Amino acid sequence: MLRGTAPRPARRRVRLETDQRRAQLLELAKAQFSARAYDDVSIDDLAREAKISKGLLYHYFPTKRDLYVAGLSEIANELVAAIEAVPQDLPPIDRVHHGLDAYLDHISRHSRAFVSLMRGGIGSDPEVAEVVESVRSRLFQRFLTGPPFTNAFTGDARFEIAVRGWIGFVEAATIDWCSNPRLSKLELRELLTQILLEIMRVVAPAVFKGAS
Amino acid sequence: MLRGTAPRPARRRVRLETDQRRAQLLELAKAQFSARAYDDVSIDDLAREAKISKGLLYHYFPTKRDLYVAGLSEIANELVAAIEAVPQDLPPIDRVHHGLDAYLDHISRHSRAFVSLMRGGIGSDPEVAEVVESVRSRLFQRFLTGPPFTNAFTGDARFEIAVRGWIGFVEAATIDWCSNPRLSKLELRELLTQILLEIMRVVAPAVFKGAS
Repeated sequence: MLRGTAPRPARRRVRLETDQRRAQLLELAKAQFSARAYDDVSIDDLAREAKISKGLLYHYFPTKRDLYVAGLSEIANELVAAIEAVPQDLPPIDRVHHGLDAYLDHISRHSRAFVSLMRGGIGSDPEVAEVVESVRSRLFQRFLTGPPFTNAFTGDARFEIAVRGWIGFVEAATIDWCSNPRLSKLELRELLTQILLEIMRVVAPAVFKGAS
Repeated sequence: MLRGTAPRPARRRVRLETDQRRAQLLELAKAQFSARAYDDVSIDDLAREAKISKGLLYHYFPTKRDLYVAGLSEIANELVAAIEAVPQDLPPIDRVHHGLDAYLDHISRHSRAFVSLMRGGIGSDPEVAEVVESVRSRLFQRFLTGPPFTNAFTGDARFEIAVRGWIGFVEAATIDWCSNPRLSKLELRELLTQILLEIMRVVAPAVFKGAS
């Protein structure tokens, strides 16, 4: 067919519109799923807001679940991107601060969706679980490969388990904080930082020595 | 009817048989769900093993999901009971060791089910999520109310968030360990203990001072 040749202008325009429509629906979905419970998000309302028919919405996302997973994946990618945007050449303690700020800012913008998701309250199918697990794995890899560790501890079981554990710590603490925000964002960030330093003192004593 | 009077012997016997049958099915279900993936557990096999008809099995547990949730709840109760069996009058460090031993022993007997459950791989509906959340809450309460804290930190936001976080740490580390057991159970227990002590040093410095 047209393989190997540039698409004709008309086709390119249709394709662009398709992408724009998809992006618009995703934006609406992200806002809706962040603001209310999964069961309270209505496909009728979404179609009305997007000024398209319900049939056309289902053409892009065959089920509400598909729309949810697509929105969730995008929120997850934005989260990882925000953390990856922290410059690698900052001192380690500043990178931790900036990384946690990015994490907590992002989560607090989607706190309702985050708590339901992490507590499994909306039901968690393998696809949803994979999005969550992929965020953990990417943050884990970044932690291991970036400075100050730059792979020095890759394969070190205690270190790797401690990093996985700390990610679990941050998630659990953040779920608690979102449901019951008793600390300011800055206080929570300080607590998470201090605890990371103590954990690193256990598993990589030479690296974080004197940083606290 | 018979309200307020003792059930007649025949009725009592039927009731006893009902309880025994239910207990037998739960035991079989616990073994099956621990040994294989949720989708690979077959109701036909379970009925055959219990030497009852599929219809009778569905009388006790209307769906496979019901049987799974009932088995899971019982495993969860056994887990909390094993940890609660640790004597309160031991020195704190011994209680942590015994509590973690009980936790890791229990999880490693059901490691496949634990990993699927915690990673959401089998799908996690609100009922399943509630079982998991109830284990966390009961362990959290025990931590706060038992010695050496005995409620001294109840309501202290940093302390409570740190305890929730440590439970998240233990879960994440244990999931990693079950999927890829690179440390011995004793090494993992030591790592978890050391990290708890460091965390407590941050949020309750007076209590665990000198314990490590």
